[in-house]
Amino acid sequence: MRDALSRTPNWSRARGALDDATLDSILTEAAKVAEQVVAPLDIPADREGARFEDGRVRVPEAYHAAFDTLAEGGWMGLEVSEELGGMGMPLALYAASGPMFDRACPAFNMAVVSTRSAALLLTDWAAPEIRDDWVPALAAGERSATICISEPGAGSDVGRIRTRAVPQPDGSWRVSGQKIWISFGDHDLRERIGHCLLARTGDAPGTRGLSLFLVERGPGVTCERIEEKMGLHGSPTCALQFEDAPARLIGEEGRGLPQMFSMIRHMRLSVACQGLGAALKCYDVAAQHAQDRRQGGNPKEPPVAIFTHPDVRRQLIEMKSAIDLYRLALLEAACSADLSAGDEDLARFTAWMLPLIKNFGAELAFDTAAKSILVLGGAGFTRDYPLEQSLRDSRVYAIYEGTTGMQGQDFFLRQTLGDGGKALGVFLTRARAECAGHPEALAVVESFAAFIARAATEPDRNRQAWMADGVLRAGWVAVQAWLSCRIAGTPEARHFLAAAPALMAFHIAKAEAPMQA
Amino acid sequence: MRDALSRTPNWSRARGALDDATLDSILTEAAKVAEQVVAPLDIPADREGARFEDGRVRVPEAYHAAFDTLAEGGWMGLEVSEELGGMGMPLALYAASGPMFDRACPAFNMAVVSTRSAALLLTDWAAPEIRDDWVPALAAGERSATICISEPGAGSDVGRIRTRAVPQPDGSWRVSGQKIWISFGDHDLRERIGHCLLARTGDAPGTRGLSLFLVERGPGVTCERIEEKMGLHGSPTCALQFEDAPARLIGEEGRGLPQMFSMIRHMRLSVACQGLGAALKCYDVAAQHAQDRRQGGNPKEPPVAIFTHPDVRRQLIEMKSAIDLYRLALLEAACSADLSAGDEDLARFTAWMLPLIKNFGAELAFDTAAKSILVLGGAGFTRDYPLEQSLRDSRVYAIYEGTTGMQGQDFFLRQTLGDGGKALGVFLTRARAECAGHPEALAVVESFAAFIARAATEPDRNRQAWMADGVLRAGWVAVQAWLSCRIAGTPEARHFLAAAPALMAFHIAKAEAPMQA
Repeated sequence: MRDALSRTPNWSRARGALDDATLDSILTEAAKVAEQVVAPLDIPADREGARFEDGRVRVPEAYHAAFDTLAEGGWMGLEVSEELGGMGMPLALYAASGPMFDRACPAFNMAVVSTRSAALLLTDWAAPEIRDDWVPALAAGERSATICISEPGAGSDVGRIRTRAVPQPDGSWRVSGQKIWISFGDHDLRERIGHCLLARTGDAPGTRGLSLFLVERGPGVTCERIEEKMGLHGSPTCALQFEDAPARLIGEEGRGLPQMFSMIRHMRLSVACQGLGAALKCYDVAAQHAQDRRQGGNPKEPPVAIFTHPDVRRQLIEMKSAIDLYRLALLEAACSADLSAGDEDLARFTAWMLPLIKNFGAELAFDTAAKSILVLGGAGFTRDYPLEQSLRDSRVYAIYEGTTGMQGQDFFLRQTLGDGGKALGVFLTRARAECAGHPEALAVVESFAAFIARAATEPDRNRQAWMADGVLRAGWVAVQAWLSCRIAGTPEARHFLAAAPALMAFHIAKAEAPMQA
Repeated sequence: MRDALSRTPNWSRARGALDDATLDSILTEAAKVAEQVVAPLDIPADREGARFEDGRVRVPEAYHAAFDTLAEGGWMGLEVSEELGGMGMPLALYAASGPMFDRACPAFNMAVVSTRSAALLLTDWAAPEIRDDWVPALAAGERSATICISEPGAGSDVGRIRTRAVPQPDGSWRVSGQKIWISFGDHDLRERIGHCLLARTGDAPGTRGLSLFLVERGPGVTCERIEEKMGLHGSPTCALQFEDAPARLIGEEGRGLPQMFSMIRHMRLSVACQGLGAALKCYDVAAQHAQDRRQGGNPKEPPVAIFTHPDVRRQLIEMKSAIDLYRLALLEAACSADLSAGDEDLARFTAWMLPLIKNFGAELAFDTAAKSILVLGGAGFTRDYPLEQSLRDSRVYAIYEGTTGMQGQDFFLRQTLGDGGKALGVFLTRARAECAGHPEALAVVESFAAFIARAATEPDRNRQAWMADGVLRAGWVAVQAWLSCRIAGTPEARHFLAAAPALMAFHIAKAEAPMQA
């Protein structure tokens, strides 16, 4: 990670006053805590799971001590400002350290993710008395928080939210409605849980009628059930019922959704960390197995390590190439996010990169888990190895915080076309500059530039929606081509570049194919 | 399936004397039994699972009655010759009906697969007294059978088998060694289980020293454990220990592996059926959900079925296109297998097609399960729908009966290069003839032909092994292009063809890229 940070040009600005010694000590300590405190939770989290008993959620027993350790170490406030009790570190450091924890136990880490995101959200928008009460408590791990958006009738379609908030004579509000898919919506790690919740206030239809509230666990808030899932068993996914629950308005009425941007940005970065963490774990297991497992070779001689078989090496380089390029993309996006406040270009560029790192972090995890299982063969399909768990856990990464379909729509319709191509322009300028000495990579970027110029002129909005998935994938190939310049000449970069032009052409062909059915 | 059969030219010969009325009644009955008898087992098979208690395996309770029903209906002898108590139906009918049962409950169906394959194996090679004793009993479902190949030190590398068979004075043999990954290696459905087992007899190294034996459950045969797996929980995967177990030689000494061809062919067809069955189930769930689930549209009006969103339609046609082309490939391979006995060209072509339909049936199942979950979003990740189970079950399809890596080596090194290009020639001749009126499809086939001609001249055997995965995938695109002519003009064919040239170019680029690391 240190090496990848040093290859990210904006890191030198994003790091601010963070010196090398402090960086080293934080990353070293993160690795230690992740390995010694969090990793041992992974199997119990899956086998024991979260349980719903007598209306309350109980997390796996071993979580309690680990949560305390993380809280005491200040990890939950890493990126929270110092004035509010955090460590004031850049998001880039969150991106560099987060994958270690997610690699160790993603289900446990879900307890921390929404709390951290909520701390940033409340930092940005809560009135001082709420902010100063809640953010330091969240950063210190004394309380926890959730994000409540989805409802049975409002998943991807946030504008259909029906939960209502009604103002009270004393200036407070009461919230009624049902929220689903709430990670750690209830648990026994901490008594106080703050729900950051979108509810309808005025009569405006769609998302314009939505406001943001803080609702605390207590009277009027009931956990109805937890979902039975394929994976992440140690992360309780709750359905919460609100009935005249006391609520406080956060920020402006009617501005609930746009206010959530800093939280959404953080959540997408968190999924990206989960993706990279899972991929690193699975790759390492496969690479180690390829060294240890002996099969094949001359039958008259002892079998050879399967690493020596060309097809196994091909499988490994395929995974590693994707991981190395992805790591650079995650750090690039995080550094851009850190510099966004004072740089409109980078702010647009960050918003353009987020659907890419969110979606392809999710795909990286799932694909690497699936591929690593193949390296192990039958053993990989068993519980003797952690790969099957990673595969089960990681399928949801492409779903929560916006499905692949939604990321495609966001990337093409909103972040590329919606801002008049400005973010795209920032990308192309930066990519062309860095690719100047790398004609192979530059050609891939240029082929994307030509394609997106055509795609932007498509007059049929339905057809653009149809194309969005292909645009997303073509954009990702272009970003990888750009970032391959930062590790130019490595086997991982060369492996990617060899087929990148053809891969770009494939996604373009899919996007430009006629709509069927 | 009837429609797809009718579009398969060789079906008219492969069906032999089977008339339309009989065909219809068999397929209709298969659908009924699969839906009414087998499908109800799917959830219990997963939740209850197979158990290992006191040295014996117990299958889910509901299996017993279902197994009896299938036996009484004659389903286990469908493709066994009439003289040996079967129905004497072509493999093409097995391929047409098998996916219905696998769709219903793949874990249960594993009980039947190895028994059916073993019946064909014993038909071909067992001495008459063994054959006449065992095959009718297997076809009637009175006994069951397994295939025992893998050992801890011999997975993909069959030549490392260490299980030994020692001849006895009376002409029988005794077998000692450990076999692993044996599906239904022990169970309580039937008392008598025959293990078709590869063991070493002479001193010849590698596969030449292997002979085939029939070993029956009883003294000297112990089930040591069953594996804890990600999926197929209702299919016990056993480790068996043989200690001086009485055995009978099947066929010739030293010819164990080549004799297994008809069994391997049947097992690969069976995985293909599993793949198609799972894909059909998952697609149907996703398509139904896309009709039922309402989200999006003008916020002032009621939400619309998500099927109306272009990206959801794209996801559905993507899945359906892959399924429709795959179905044609499976039936083509099965019809070719049926006609192989009297036609050397088709025999070679069948062997060439088998790694394709095995591997891409496995990938079809896994990919369709993964994609269908995305259509449902969070709900797809829960146990409220059967998709997560299909995803868990289907990961192993790309592993057992030969991993993707082994299928690639088989396809390129053995079936394409090893027979001097004869099978490839049969493919190209047939494909060019059928594509004559379809220039788009023909171009894809020709681009494969040019590529494979280059690949065949590669002098470095290591590099050919490195290329094999790309060759396998390029070959599959070529086969799909060919078969798209059989459904020319459908949205599914057009969707595939639109990006097929680019996809072919991508696989070629991967195969021809330099070896890395």
